[in-house]
Amino acid sequence: MPTIDGQRVVADLKRLAEFGRYKTGVHRPTYSPVDVESRHWLAEKLGEAGLDPVIDGIGNVIGRNPSAQRRLLIGSHSETQPYGGWLDGSLGVIYGLELARAFAEDPGCAEFGIEVAAWADEEGHYGNYLGSRSFTDALPEDEIDQTRGRDDGTPLREALERAGLAARPRERVDPKRYVGYLEAHIEQGDTLDTSGLRIGIVETIVGIWNYRISLIGEQNHAGTTRMVRRKDAGVAMVRLATRIHDCFPEIAGLRTVWTIGRILLEPNAPSVVPGHAEMQVQFRDADIDRLAVFEKSLHELVSEADRAGPCACEIETIARTEPRPMDPRFQDQIEAAAERHAPHMHMRLPSAAGHDAAVLSYRMPAGMMFIPSLRGISHHWSEDSKEEDIVLGAQVFADAAERILRSVR
Amino acid sequence: MPTIDGQRVVADLKRLAEFGRYKTGVHRPTYSPVDVESRHWLAEKLGEAGLDPVIDGIGNVIGRNPSAQRRLLIGSHSETQPYGGWLDGSLGVIYGLELARAFAEDPGCAEFGIEVAAWADEEGHYGNYLGSRSFTDALPEDEIDQTRGRDDGTPLREALERAGLAARPRERVDPKRYVGYLEAHIEQGDTLDTSGLRIGIVETIVGIWNYRISLIGEQNHAGTTRMVRRKDAGVAMVRLATRIHDCFPEIAGLRTVWTIGRILLEPNAPSVVPGHAEMQVQFRDADIDRLAVFEKSLHELVSEADRAGPCACEIETIARTEPRPMDPRFQDQIEAAAERHAPHMHMRLPSAAGHDAAVLSYRMPAGMMFIPSLRGISHHWSEDSKEEDIVLGAQVFADAAERILRSVR
Repeated sequence: MPTIDGQRVVADLKRLAEFGRYKTGVHRPTYSPVDVESRHWLAEKLGEAGLDPVIDGIGNVIGRNPSAQRRLLIGSHSETQPYGGWLDGSLGVIYGLELARAFAEDPGCAEFGIEVAAWADEEGHYGNYLGSRSFTDALPEDEIDQTRGRDDGTPLREALERAGLAARPRERVDPKRYVGYLEAHIEQGDTLDTSGLRIGIVETIVGIWNYRISLIGEQNHAGTTRMVRRKDAGVAMVRLATRIHDCFPEIAGLRTVWTIGRILLEPNAPSVVPGHAEMQVQFRDADIDRLAVFEKSLHELVSEADRAGPCACEIETIARTEPRPMDPRFQDQIEAAAERHAPHMHMRLPSAAGHDAAVLSYRMPAGMMFIPSLRGISHHWSEDSKEEDIVLGAQVFADAAERILRSVR
Repeated sequence: MPTIDGQRVVADLKRLAEFGRYKTGVHRPTYSPVDVESRHWLAEKLGEAGLDPVIDGIGNVIGRNPSAQRRLLIGSHSETQPYGGWLDGSLGVIYGLELARAFAEDPGCAEFGIEVAAWADEEGHYGNYLGSRSFTDALPEDEIDQTRGRDDGTPLREALERAGLAARPRERVDPKRYVGYLEAHIEQGDTLDTSGLRIGIVETIVGIWNYRISLIGEQNHAGTTRMVRRKDAGVAMVRLATRIHDCFPEIAGLRTVWTIGRILLEPNAPSVVPGHAEMQVQFRDADIDRLAVFEKSLHELVSEADRAGPCACEIETIARTEPRPMDPRFQDQIEAAAERHAPHMHMRLPSAAGHDAAVLSYRMPAGMMFIPSLRGISHHWSEDSKEEDIVLGAQVFADAAERILRSVR
């Protein structure tokens, strides 16, 4: 069994967290200068681990193993949410790096190769799963042409140019090359932490459906425009958002979640009646039928708001990912490894967060493993996990990878 | 009677609108490069009109008349709202310039002097009435130290430095120098336009009370945080905003207006439960007792939201301007001039917008005159007035100024 070096894992995670450090977390948006620096550092580390590293035209860092007979692809994303956590994404990338080293150091694993990927923009600063979709032939050139940064509208092409990536080719998957894809991640929820368990085996990655709702009113002076004459897009927006939050609980399942995480007013000035407003509505569930019920309800609420006036109300679908089951054989092998190193301290559970593993699962068998998140906090700089869980997780993950390489045909 | 040159007025307004032109309107935020350019152009025009021009340390452009025996100060602001109108503010400044020229050209007015001011930041890109408050000794140095740009948080000191203003002294009023202050403006509302009248005589400038409301929740992952565990500051905000819009109509007078024009979510990302939200609530009325009732209601709604949880809710007063009556003698003289040039086509009315005249009225007698706004549209690039109303307004204003200079002691 390949044996991981726990201190090496923790040291690399801490080094990676230096790129964009913010309090105890990290601010490292995709294609920002620190993100680009960190990807060059990762490529160097993959080279030191004996892999052939490449940074491709969308920012993916991929370490190839040219000689192995059977290969697992292991990865996660390396950018962070705005002012996000130090482990989200980074953990899975550094686990991949450590497994490449541990397998290379284990003479019993000479026929096996670990290839490592640090995907770009899983967190969606520009698009949705840009890196893993590019790698799996699911990112057309014209989408790249049209994509703009979520915060300041920078064209993706311009961001790639500035990051020194524009002239590089995009790497594409050869599914025959791999037994499958494996990804480790912090749970981000509190299921493991509150139940005192140490390893999660992912059964399904939820579907995530995203919508943009626009309210179109009439921009005007906040003093001289009498209330009866106003078409205030901000009022229309807060009323519709309140309706959504009132209605969704009635149709939700036990694990359904919905969020209005992004709101824009125009011109967003205290003395101007807003002429335009926008909000993004997102919901997640492992059951595709329930997602469809939510979508129907959202369309009805938007129509109702539009009919009520005085502002027009429009809805546009941004993205709909299907719920993706993980390969049952992968689940079994992760569970067997967990039982060996942490007997009775593991459970199977769905992933309420989206992951690159869902994208990869369209092209090859895929599996995912979780370690606990303290208090379930994530997408925030205070996100953390116990060091002993980080180290244990790496060893379970290495053991699971070997079991998969030996058993899955 | 000083006679204005209508074509000269319109040409100067059009020239000024070139600084920051946006569609048929203007985008000229305070201290932006185009704003600074336009102030230098205005200083040059005031010099051509025979005044001694100065741009002071807060950005005010002031044209002094060194020789007159009796003086009126005439002005308005020259920056615009974001993507705002071409007349708002600019009209009053160019009227001032034209009156300086018309009085200088009229031998019967040799003893009278028109001094002209283009105030800085009436529109509040940085503060509240920075220019006129600076001029009337109502802007302390430490407020300048602490003020930051509303949009990007740039310190005001840094903006002044970049605008080349930091080293200049701030001009201060000598009230004994003036018979009073006069300001012309577009109405911005639709009262004149819908009643087919051409001149408005302002009786009172409404009080404007502004508040910042903060909602403090817990930032978290939008997938993995179950609904019952969330402290979503965005949900708290839209619910409170909806309550405000439901409750305020019950206590409003005929002309009370209220606006939530500015909303901020943090981190404002689609896949993150917002941990912090902020909104600015503003209301306006000519009756100070009604403003107090609104304030009491707002405090109650905030307390109610705070008690209901799960987010904390705080309120902070940003600014409270008192309703300011205009000098009755000024009103009478403006009305007499309106009756001469546009018989039966004028009315007295309150100003629902705030103006620098309210600030100046604490230090000297003040008056205001309105011309009609087409469809009452303002604070938007499509704001406009008929050219014949612009020209008529300038002549009424010149006549009113002479009447005031001759009669008010």
